[in-house]
Amino acid sequence: MPSDPRTAIATVCLSGALEDKLAAAAAAGFDGVEIFEPDLVASPMSPGEVRLRCADLGLSIDLYQPFRDLDSTDDDRLAANLRRAGHKFDVMHALGSDTVLVCSSVAPDAVADPDRLAGQLHELAERAADRGLRLAYEALAWGRHVDTWEASWDVVRRADHPALGLCLDSFHVLSRTADPDGIATVPGDAIFFLQLADAPVLAMDVLQWSRHHRLFPGQGGFDLPRFLAAVLTAGYRGPLSLEVFNDVFRQADPVRTAADGHRSLLALAEATAAGGTGVDPVGVPAPDLLGTAFVEIATGDDAGPLDDTLSALGFSRTGRHRTKPVDRWEQGRARILVNRSGADAAAVSALAVESADPAAAARRAARLGAAPLPRTRGPAEADLPAVTAPDGTALFFCRPGDDSDWSGDFEPTDIRGDGLGVTGVDHLGLAQPYDHFDEATLFYRSVLGLLPGGTGEFAAPFGLVRSRGLSDPARHVRLALTVSLLRRGEWAPGVPEPQYIALAVDDVVTSAAAARAAGAPLLAIPDNYYDDLAARVDLPAERLDAYRRLGVLHDQGPGGAYLQVCTEVLAGRVFVVLVQRLGDDDGYGWTDAPVRMSAHRRQRIARRLSGYRTAHHSSSLSNGLPDE
Amino acid sequence: MPSDPRTAIATVCLSGALEDKLAAAAAAGFDGVEIFEPDLVASPMSPGEVRLRCADLGLSIDLYQPFRDLDSTDDDRLAANLRRAGHKFDVMHALGSDTVLVCSSVAPDAVADPDRLAGQLHELAERAADRGLRLAYEALAWGRHVDTWEASWDVVRRADHPALGLCLDSFHVLSRTADPDGIATVPGDAIFFLQLADAPVLAMDVLQWSRHHRLFPGQGGFDLPRFLAAVLTAGYRGPLSLEVFNDVFRQADPVRTAADGHRSLLALAEATAAGGTGVDPVGVPAPDLLGTAFVEIATGDDAGPLDDTLSALGFSRTGRHRTKPVDRWEQGRARILVNRSGADAAAVSALAVESADPAAAARRAARLGAAPLPRTRGPAEADLPAVTAPDGTALFFCRPGDDSDWSGDFEPTDIRGDGLGVTGVDHLGLAQPYDHFDEATLFYRSVLGLLPGGTGEFAAPFGLVRSRGLSDPARHVRLALTVSLLRRGEWAPGVPEPQYIALAVDDVVTSAAAARAAGAPLLAIPDNYYDDLAARVDLPAERLDAYRRLGVLHDQGPGGAYLQVCTEVLAGRVFVVLVQRLGDDDGYGWTDAPVRMSAHRRQRIARRLSGYRTAHHSSSLSNGLPDE
Repeated sequence: MPSDPRTAIATVCLSGALEDKLAAAAAAGFDGVEIFEPDLVASPMSPGEVRLRCADLGLSIDLYQPFRDLDSTDDDRLAANLRRAGHKFDVMHALGSDTVLVCSSVAPDAVADPDRLAGQLHELAERAADRGLRLAYEALAWGRHVDTWEASWDVVRRADHPALGLCLDSFHVLSRTADPDGIATVPGDAIFFLQLADAPVLAMDVLQWSRHHRLFPGQGGFDLPRFLAAVLTAGYRGPLSLEVFNDVFRQADPVRTAADGHRSLLALAEATAAGGTGVDPVGVPAPDLLGTAFVEIATGDDAGPLDDTLSALGFSRTGRHRTKPVDRWEQGRARILVNRSGADAAAVSALAVESADPAAAARRAARLGAAPLPRTRGPAEADLPAVTAPDGTALFFCRPGDDSDWSGDFEPTDIRGDGLGVTGVDHLGLAQPYDHFDEATLFYRSVLGLLPGGTGEFAAPFGLVRSRGLSDPARHVRLALTVSLLRRGEWAPGVPEPQYIALAVDDVVTSAAAARAAGAPLLAIPDNYYDDLAARVDLPAERLDAYRRLGVLHDQGPGGAYLQVCTEVLAGRVFVVLVQRLGDDDGYGWTDAPVRMSAHRRQRIARRLSGYRTAHHSSSLSNGLPDE
Repeated sequence: MPSDPRTAIATVCLSGALEDKLAAAAAAGFDGVEIFEPDLVASPMSPGEVRLRCADLGLSIDLYQPFRDLDSTDDDRLAANLRRAGHKFDVMHALGSDTVLVCSSVAPDAVADPDRLAGQLHELAERAADRGLRLAYEALAWGRHVDTWEASWDVVRRADHPALGLCLDSFHVLSRTADPDGIATVPGDAIFFLQLADAPVLAMDVLQWSRHHRLFPGQGGFDLPRFLAAVLTAGYRGPLSLEVFNDVFRQADPVRTAADGHRSLLALAEATAAGGTGVDPVGVPAPDLLGTAFVEIATGDDAGPLDDTLSALGFSRTGRHRTKPVDRWEQGRARILVNRSGADAAAVSALAVESADPAAAARRAARLGAAPLPRTRGPAEADLPAVTAPDGTALFFCRPGDDSDWSGDFEPTDIRGDGLGVTGVDHLGLAQPYDHFDEATLFYRSVLGLLPGGTGEFAAPFGLVRSRGLSDPARHVRLALTVSLLRRGEWAPGVPEPQYIALAVDDVVTSAAAARAAGAPLLAIPDNYYDDLAARVDLPAERLDAYRRLGVLHDQGPGGAYLQVCTEVLAGRVFVVLVQRLGDDDGYGWTDAPVRMSAHRRQRIARRLSGYRTAHHSSSLSNGLPDE
């Protein structure tokens, strides 16, 4: 049986100094690295010391890169370039790395004639072979003459030297064509190296696209399983190596980024194997999700506003934990645990998903490098398998319904009332830490098999916000992720951002009216919103009046509408939303998010002001508050 | 004599809630605003209240915007769109605003036939006229059928209604053509509104370019004086109004952004007037800069490392201030003031530039809205005129040479030694606060008449850095500005970033060797750098050896080279650089910045480690340090 694919990562993917990058790559489980030349040049470690460090860490040095602009129509310049290569061969020798990436030239003196170019590559290959090295020639998508993989393969064939082969980079290939299948016809031993990167589909200069917006496989819009299948079919058996230039990853903790990247390769190999090519290194399929077992909110002592609001929203406190300060609230199929042993300010602390085989789902998560949840953090006594999502939320795996392990930990208390129409959890809205939005998408996509929707964007009061919905194919579990497009500064405070639990109702007006009557703190929406809504959507007057009275937000889509009523932000950072979906709506109400965010900000300024007025007789507070 | 142009700003340019935006626009001196509809929709102020607020602030409401997708090939949809417009006319009536921006449609049902489109616009204009309103029709650069100003003017002419005119937006025009001169032939009274925005020249989808990357005039790459000249020649006499969608401005303090925007309009009007069209609202030309009078470094009590280094670099302490804790150091034409009354950690606190008429230069700065420097901050007794630059650096205006007002405040001390070859100040390197990079460029460009070079970019160890050099035409005064491409997070600490004083020398090897011998803490550069330099540049072996020994960085350009030796970061955030320019080099050594930054970071980690080891026996410190 063929073994799992070997994995590697280019040091340029990661933030920090070379020693930080190597340590992070090893910790994430990579087998090897590509050494990006500027990382070495800036390092006080000699090439020999880097070789030793990598050996200590169990990392092979699979590639030295890049060597730029070799070929030249000017003989003097070609001689200088060959001389430069000689210096680099010395470095590679000391590093103990036998393959160097040679990019197609972007220089004005690049050679256009393929035979002349092949001759120059042949000469360098000959020199490399003399040193026991080999060249992996790569077509940059913006190369001056060689800018497709076909053109690079043509040159390699003409040069016809055993020390010269191809480097295939998925970005350079897929940014130029959606059909990489022809790669399957290349002899596998002519493919010396494979670099993998995803990217969002953008209409922009390809060099800028490549330098700033690459992503790990599964985080963007490229069909990488198809690409990898072609390369494996060709017979390539080298490492799967990541080369991702990404502005955020360049700043983020390299240990986190490396783990994210390693997960992306496992998920890619799995998806490619599912298509019939290669070996699946995960070995446990994604779970069929059946629903949400519970959502947990961690609070400090101040759970009062949350309890009052759940009660006003028609929830019954149906259980009290036998040994921990945890209450279970229920309505319809929605279950919310309020855990008083936790945070200072209320925050969503856990999501528990239901599937037929939770142990298998947990095995899959572990195989994909998800961090196991510290045992002490479970809300129940039952030993539920759980991992930690990128934003710190715990993710529990449960069996469906009332027979689940966890529910036995709760002593029944109240008799269930009728409620006010909540049928279940529609989704969770989780604002993500700036550095971990794409990591979160890949985490949920790979661990839970959720399908990510497209990335949206809206103008919040204090900056642009990026959004993405994820759900399982059957829409049993949904998540709405958001993140600031740019990390916030002082004027636009952004941490911690509010989170929400969206609860499904059949008739948002009826449910909201009942909640209001029961004292739920529904968020006040400006009249201007309803004047604009009346201009945009032709609604019956009494419906518009009800919306205006109750603060219903109406996001009209082409085939339906997303209606929501939000509560104020309760203690901490959590609010609750009642959601009614009309028609075939499959959205998350993003259109109304700026209005909702402005309203929440006003609510919190007002609350803070009243607190401050009491405590300090001060009112200068248009700033310094958490917001989105 | 014609009066100064009226100025306006669209609320979408600024961060915050509507009330924040209006207050900021008024404080910056704008005469009016465009109300961006989503700002109103999210506001709890009714349109009537907004009208009153604007009146209180002295702001006219010059435009309500935008009205999208009016025209339709579907009669029902057209009727719905006209109904929607009726609602918006009600809002405009309550706002007291008489002009609405109507964008060309991007919808699939947009009307292609210009006569049919003109008919639909005529109908809306008729309805607007009935309400005493008028329509300013604008071609979006990505409009479905109408996507150039010429196409919009064609439709407006066909519609032929007095309540219908053009809105010209410099972005939409200049993103499509570099030649806007034809606008001069449009009758001035048909141009109802003018929106101004600059942008960097980018090769990307024009909609994304417009939504994220617009800048204030003078901050980008468009020829806005030429554009404005055409519009004024046509006869337009309405306000000059800014409409800028910029990711950073959306997050930044709106009071700062509004001041920046207002300055941009004054500078644009001045530049246009200099070309022969319109009125110059500044009235004082940019100074001819003659050189740097002094650079001031503010330190706390711990000026020892700085004093020692200046001394080792060949500076003489030539003066002690008569009344303040300030020393004057000199060598060649370089003068550095060390002010102990200032910051906790050393930082560049002031730049003093020389010109023949410093009072005029200061009047110009004031006319351009530069913040006057608080009187207490001057290092000298003499009442030197001064303003504060966007990053907080004081900018003093002096007469040239030894006859300057300020030098009389200093009691002569040491006799001047020979020094070690420093001839003057080459430039200052000032890392800018994240939110204020483009503001800083415009500030120096407009206040001092510096010419900005292109924006560069390099990969620093903890994220990408953007760079821009500025200098006067004669290269007497230079600045090198840098900023993180993305605001830094925890892993990549970024505040405060190092600053430097670059000192010109004729022979960097000789000067650096003398400095090293005198004990100057020169920054250690890795051997790998010199191995790479040897590969790239064919240098004589002894020169390379000297470079390696002294830590000389050699940035080879096409027509010259930039050679530099850096000191370690001294107390606080300041280091000193010795610079030798070869050939016609006009750069700032950006290529070597990543290597220099890595070396500085190692130096500081080592220093911190040794401090911590002593204090805490701890060594886990690869993070948490200031860096670039």
